[in-house]
Amino acid sequence: MSSISIFGLGAMGTALARTLLKNGHTVTVWNRTRSRAEPLAGAGAKIAESPTEAIAASELTILCLVDYPAARAVLEQAQEALAGRDLLNLTNGTPGDARELGTWLAARGAIYLDGGIMAIPPMIGGAGALILYSGSRALFDRHSSTLEALAESRHLGEDEGLASLYDIALLSGMYGLFSGFLHASALVTSAGGKAVDFLPLLLPWIEAMSGTLPDLAGKIDSGMHGRDVVSNIAMQKIALENIVRASEEQGVAPDFMRPMLRLAGDRVDSGGHGDDISAVVEVIRKRK
Amino acid sequence: MSSISIFGLGAMGTALARTLLKNGHTVTVWNRTRSRAEPLAGAGAKIAESPTEAIAASELTILCLVDYPAARAVLEQAQEALAGRDLLNLTNGTPGDARELGTWLAARGAIYLDGGIMAIPPMIGGAGALILYSGSRALFDRHSSTLEALAESRHLGEDEGLASLYDIALLSGMYGLFSGFLHASALVTSAGGKAVDFLPLLLPWIEAMSGTLPDLAGKIDSGMHGRDVVSNIAMQKIALENIVRASEEQGVAPDFMRPMLRLAGDRVDSGGHGDDISAVVEVIRKRK
Repeated sequence: MSSISIFGLGAMGTALARTLLKNGHTVTVWNRTRSRAEPLAGAGAKIAESPTEAIAASELTILCLVDYPAARAVLEQAQEALAGRDLLNLTNGTPGDARELGTWLAARGAIYLDGGIMAIPPMIGGAGALILYSGSRALFDRHSSTLEALAESRHLGEDEGLASLYDIALLSGMYGLFSGFLHASALVTSAGGKAVDFLPLLLPWIEAMSGTLPDLAGKIDSGMHGRDVVSNIAMQKIALENIVRASEEQGVAPDFMRPMLRLAGDRVDSGGHGDDISAVVEVIRKRK
Repeated sequence: MSSISIFGLGAMGTALARTLLKNGHTVTVWNRTRSRAEPLAGAGAKIAESPTEAIAASELTILCLVDYPAARAVLEQAQEALAGRDLLNLTNGTPGDARELGTWLAARGAIYLDGGIMAIPPMIGGAGALILYSGSRALFDRHSSTLEALAESRHLGEDEGLASLYDIALLSGMYGLFSGFLHASALVTSAGGKAVDFLPLLLPWIEAMSGTLPDLAGKIDSGMHGRDVVSNIAMQKIALENIVRASEEQGVAPDFMRPMLRLAGDRVDSGGHGDDISAVVEVIRKRK
């Protein structure tokens, strides 16, 4: 068993602390609002009086704060305690945020691992939770059994930005799914249907359409978007125009559908009418 | 076995004709560009010399044209043949298009069924293809065994617009999925990764996140978006801001992610910060 300090006791930090306590680890917590730490003290956690004390108390410190400025503010209060310490940052941010914090910590002698949590708090410590890591492989290996207690672990590389990038890529996939679902639900309910009743149609359809993603991914990697195309982007543009028009007829704002129509149109206009929808990646890469 | 005429021999119309021929039906085809019909003649189809001849030839006429203006143009050439005929329209359009055509055909004594094909052409006649129907239930029942040869069939109601509405709702779900996938792929490849290598992370994640849709659907139907919320829309807005910022860092245009950020922000601004992401449906319903 090892000793872990946790900074930040929102829903996620609290779930991490409880899971580590349940696994028999020694857990020290610090939170700006001390009252949030008290329920955990009842469950066996120690409450540190300062960030410095929290970092000094444990073999591994985990940051799970609201954003990077909050993480940086806490670490600046504990600068003298950082040298030689293992720090895992699970605060949400961008790859650039993670790389910048990694540089700042390296200058103070700390060892840095960044992580992206692919789960909601109730999933921590259970099946289906995944945490992506990047940064110090040595730190990851040193604490692998502790980390495995939280979620399935995957180390993506030494570049601290990778965990955040893949986290954000997965969240993008989720928000895409949600945007389609929300738009579809608005349409169905606009005609008096129920979103719940529509799911037995939608869920198998989404599963079937997920089956086309490997083909699209191959086209993205090869850049050969015109190979074996069943429904080309010019035809799909017509379908997208119908979606936008039908949405307006039904009183549903087509905000979620307009970007695909516009981007598909850009590709058609630049001569790619025979391409598959995968070619939209070329358009969003270009539009910096 | 019955006799069916098909108007429009794009990839979908051709797949419908071939499947019906394979099932032993008598198939008559008509296409504005006659050369497209010739391969089907080789497979046993008759080629009609005019729209009127095609409609008169068969018990059921199926329209599968590029859009409603094309469908209407063909039917106007065959007005004298319409009375008492069964017409199935599988042309893509909006619910309003279908209702308008239904009214026009009813005035000419034709019986009208509208359909939305939830499949790509190679899927026709095989497992996994679904066609949604709405309009005349009598026509649907009369030709049900013919229709079952094409795809699984579901009749949604007498309102001709429903098949198109549900078709468009399902396509919206698909385009949401695609938008998330394309954005994620652009992010991963911007850092040197491969879209194909990312799929083993993305596909189980999408499946897991699909598991949250029944809860969101229940919130949409009840309008109670603040019940049992794990990650409220104010927190999700922060995640969306990170996605947009990370995308810009990586040189990927955040076009697919901006609508969700903006709509979530609108809900937070109007006092719904504690709601689940399902509440975005209220925002897109309001923004007519």
